[in-house]
Amino acid sequence: MELENKIKSWPESAARLIAVAAGRDTADLVIRNGIWVNVHTRETLEGYDIAVANGRFAAIAPDLSGAIGPDTEVIEAEGRFMVPGLCDAHMHVESGMLTPAEFAAAVIPHGTTSMFTDPHEIANVLGLAGVKMMHDEALMQPVNIFTQMPSCAPSAPGLETTGFEITPEDVAEAMQWPGIIGLGEMMNFPGVVAGDAQMLAEIAATQNAGKTVGGHYASPDLGAPFRAYAAGGPADDHEGTCEADAIARVRNGMRSMMRLGSAWYDVETQITAVTEKGLDPRNFILCTDDCHSGTLVNDGHMNRVYRHAVECGCDPLVALQMCTINTASHFGLERELGSITPGRRADLILTSDLKTLPVEHVIARGKTVAKNGKLLTECPHFDWPEEARDTVHLGRELTETDFAIPAPEGAAKVQARVIGVIENQAPTKALSCEMTVTQGNVHPDPARDIAQIALVERHKGTGTVTNGFVSGFGYQGRMAMGSTVAHDSHHMIVVGTDREMMAACANRLGEIGGGVSVWKDGAELACVPLPIAGLMSDDPAQTVAARAGKMVEAMAECGCTLNNAYMQHSLLALVVIPEIRISDLGLVDVSRFELTELFE
Amino acid sequence: MELENKIKSWPESAARLIAVAAGRDTADLVIRNGIWVNVHTRETLEGYDIAVANGRFAAIAPDLSGAIGPDTEVIEAEGRFMVPGLCDAHMHVESGMLTPAEFAAAVIPHGTTSMFTDPHEIANVLGLAGVKMMHDEALMQPVNIFTQMPSCAPSAPGLETTGFEITPEDVAEAMQWPGIIGLGEMMNFPGVVAGDAQMLAEIAATQNAGKTVGGHYASPDLGAPFRAYAAGGPADDHEGTCEADAIARVRNGMRSMMRLGSAWYDVETQITAVTEKGLDPRNFILCTDDCHSGTLVNDGHMNRVYRHAVECGCDPLVALQMCTINTASHFGLERELGSITPGRRADLILTSDLKTLPVEHVIARGKTVAKNGKLLTECPHFDWPEEARDTVHLGRELTETDFAIPAPEGAAKVQARVIGVIENQAPTKALSCEMTVTQGNVHPDPARDIAQIALVERHKGTGTVTNGFVSGFGYQGRMAMGSTVAHDSHHMIVVGTDREMMAACANRLGEIGGGVSVWKDGAELACVPLPIAGLMSDDPAQTVAARAGKMVEAMAECGCTLNNAYMQHSLLALVVIPEIRISDLGLVDVSRFELTELFE
Repeated sequence: MELENKIKSWPESAARLIAVAAGRDTADLVIRNGIWVNVHTRETLEGYDIAVANGRFAAIAPDLSGAIGPDTEVIEAEGRFMVPGLCDAHMHVESGMLTPAEFAAAVIPHGTTSMFTDPHEIANVLGLAGVKMMHDEALMQPVNIFTQMPSCAPSAPGLETTGFEITPEDVAEAMQWPGIIGLGEMMNFPGVVAGDAQMLAEIAATQNAGKTVGGHYASPDLGAPFRAYAAGGPADDHEGTCEADAIARVRNGMRSMMRLGSAWYDVETQITAVTEKGLDPRNFILCTDDCHSGTLVNDGHMNRVYRHAVECGCDPLVALQMCTINTASHFGLERELGSITPGRRADLILTSDLKTLPVEHVIARGKTVAKNGKLLTECPHFDWPEEARDTVHLGRELTETDFAIPAPEGAAKVQARVIGVIENQAPTKALSCEMTVTQGNVHPDPARDIAQIALVERHKGTGTVTNGFVSGFGYQGRMAMGSTVAHDSHHMIVVGTDREMMAACANRLGEIGGGVSVWKDGAELACVPLPIAGLMSDDPAQTVAARAGKMVEAMAECGCTLNNAYMQHSLLALVVIPEIRISDLGLVDVSRFELTELFE
Repeated sequence: MELENKIKSWPESAARLIAVAAGRDTADLVIRNGIWVNVHTRETLEGYDIAVANGRFAAIAPDLSGAIGPDTEVIEAEGRFMVPGLCDAHMHVESGMLTPAEFAAAVIPHGTTSMFTDPHEIANVLGLAGVKMMHDEALMQPVNIFTQMPSCAPSAPGLETTGFEITPEDVAEAMQWPGIIGLGEMMNFPGVVAGDAQMLAEIAATQNAGKTVGGHYASPDLGAPFRAYAAGGPADDHEGTCEADAIARVRNGMRSMMRLGSAWYDVETQITAVTEKGLDPRNFILCTDDCHSGTLVNDGHMNRVYRHAVECGCDPLVALQMCTINTASHFGLERELGSITPGRRADLILTSDLKTLPVEHVIARGKTVAKNGKLLTECPHFDWPEEARDTVHLGRELTETDFAIPAPEGAAKVQARVIGVIENQAPTKALSCEMTVTQGNVHPDPARDIAQIALVERHKGTGTVTNGFVSGFGYQGRMAMGSTVAHDSHHMIVVGTDREMMAACANRLGEIGGGVSVWKDGAELACVPLPIAGLMSDDPAQTVAARAGKMVEAMAECGCTLNNAYMQHSLLALVVIPEIRISDLGLVDVSRFELTELFE
């Protein structure tokens, strides 16, 4: 197996491309009689042929039949639109619970041919070595998967312990790898605004390498802190949620990345900056950020985002620019991909309708990779080493006593800090609940929708279990739900109403090397094994999506009433989003960025 | 004298920029109460302040009075427009007959703060060493002068001998210099279309360095040869002359550079691609290519091009993008200059009218460099070495016999090939004239407007004089006009009606180290000394423009009736433009790309 799916560079291919364009050589592929969707001029041009050689566009002209030789493949566009392959400007492969290979296999039939991926999750589990594995599998694929070097592991130093930490030296080293396109989202925006030396060193290493610094400014304050963040160097941001956010970013020289993920809906609220305010669209970009496997299997990927943008009133050609040339330009790849023009990688879609964009034929690097929703190429798997498949280290078998929550000596009642889940929102609410002490312990109270939550350390086998309470899932009966996907440090989060079930669930995840497991009344209802770093499966998206679907059903069977219940679960340790979270170090008051006590 | 006028990089400045934006530090400069012309969003925003630190923009906000400390300079914009400094995307400094320092001094008051210069002329005279001298003086200036490494010296191998030749190895070496931004215009377009290995190697060296390949496709054929040229890698082209040219370039992934030079008028005919056809303007750029010192002194520079574009119906904000952010993006400098946004170089203009763009105040890297047309900064001179000031090597004193044109043995009449100058056009006409032989020689015939032309070898002191005839100048009486500016190989062209005057003129240029000299009736009427490489003066633009004005008057006094007579003169050795030219190797039939005989 070739370790890298290489394409000859433009300079390496120039002599041949010229020869084909000049009519001295025949092409590898000629696509006949389509509508050239030109994202440089923003035009559709009827009746064009395309000649491809060395996986790159050689020429686009009304009649290239002269480039057809005995060995030339010919595809009849039959008057359909020839659209550049779609680009996802910012995304996390791990969100699909899939490896890069299986993620690629899932999205290629949707017309995605370029992805800009930030393997932030694996960085927390396996550090630079894990990023390198993702990077290496990415380069093996038949489409373009670029890697953004994760910037923030841990995302909240001092409030959590990750498996590994990312240093400025790691960033500088990664900038030399062939598939690294820039720095992943700089989430530590308070650090940048405060002039934190480590964050500035990571940004500097990226800028000095001539690469793009990804942004993440998750605050509604568009005043001095936002301007200070922009002055720090991040070149894009996908955390905007309203029109003013998008406008402020572009006015300050950043690109506004508008996302439609499985649970992100930030296109409709921001695209009015273009559709209504009439701003120059060149600095607006579409992306997904996070897509679950179910979304990929059932709804689509960037084609879904594109359609949504068009439904929001965006001109189709402008929306196409937002997921092709705008993205390529942003990452300095305008002369490499993102348009159907000479020299660029021959990535394109044939579609019979520009508004709904049915993806009928996908070509990547000059080869057919999918037709009518069916993958027609191989997405090779990296040989994931043992250390990537053995990342759940509990240190010992857990028992129900690990999940006991002892009350302060002699107390009959306690006032507990409870994490309050808010429907359809990422922030939590810091609740305060009076709870009764029984036999020296405080117990979950399903009648008041108060379950236990445990953060089980799983990187270093310390055997640490941090216990607390959570409200909002609606769990009833004897149950537990556990996941080793636990943003951002990815220990293990177990939520349950019963300590025996919680211990069984945690031990089960330890046995299978991570994933998600739902237990009820002494038995496992559903399981999504995620053996790679406890985050990803190397099974196909359909398989993973089916398992994830059963997991959601199992959560509902345990009484859960939330939309996106699994996402809410996996974000409960995300100690950078207010108001209150749990980490391996204890309960975290995110509003004050400090550890706090379970009992007031 | 500091050898390089350095500005701290964005990463080097980030901590301070953040501190100023966050309100923890004061700025070096605050500009108060202006209209922020935002070329990212294409908006004008009233009532903004700008804070500058380390020569870079730190913040733009409605009120930055908090950034004013005891050492902060304050400039009141008084409600005027704050416009990014103008960029010239493609130009030759030598065309102004000025050194980079004096060129900068001339254009800074016009609001030009970034130039992308191709020192193609000096490359023909002094090779890579000459390019390095231009590059070094460029980096000493208070504004941004980037150098494009010349690609084609000689421009017509085999048809002329240059002082030095440029090789792919030279190109690869230059790509490592700090001020090199890309490859200068690839004029050998037939070579690219034919797959010439040397041209492709130069393009490859540039692309592999991640830099921009300048184009020059000077043919009206937009078919296969054009597409083959585009497939070769040039990323822009300024040789388009009509709307179809501009559209074809942008459709094929190149940027259309539309020029208004002293004698180029290619904006009006091409900008309709945007103003009438409605194409996305992002890939259209304005430039000058060639400006004489007189134009710079009397008419302006990029402000002149901008005004012209607006007069041609272009929206002012779109036209501004075409000489700011579009140019910066093209050269990969979008995060370094070309807009008023955090982190970028603080280059801007204050102007009270956006349509006519009076340039009232120019700031470069945060310092006032001009006000109301007056330069307020130093433009330091490079210490040009002796070899740059001693480039006119005639080998010996020339006499009138060097200019004698002997007829074939025994002929009484000859049929001579005569270079026919065409008013207002660069191409010449190949004329055939019957001429009488007197005392064995053929003589000029002012009555029929036939003068002599001599190409005097001046690089290697071979003493070679190539003689021929030229028609169209209208010269009368005993006169001679000589110039060491003689595109592209820059030997010496002497045109005259009298051999004694021609010899005197040539010897005079040999004495003063090059320039232009006009002689009549035994005396010099006018002289423009160009001691540096025989191409440039290090006197101020006003001085050079005055001398050039006298030169034009002197040519008229000798009977010349042409517009742009000097340019016509200096292009007579440009052996890449049809139909007939002269070189050190003989008369050149450019239509057939071969040497030919003077007599048929």
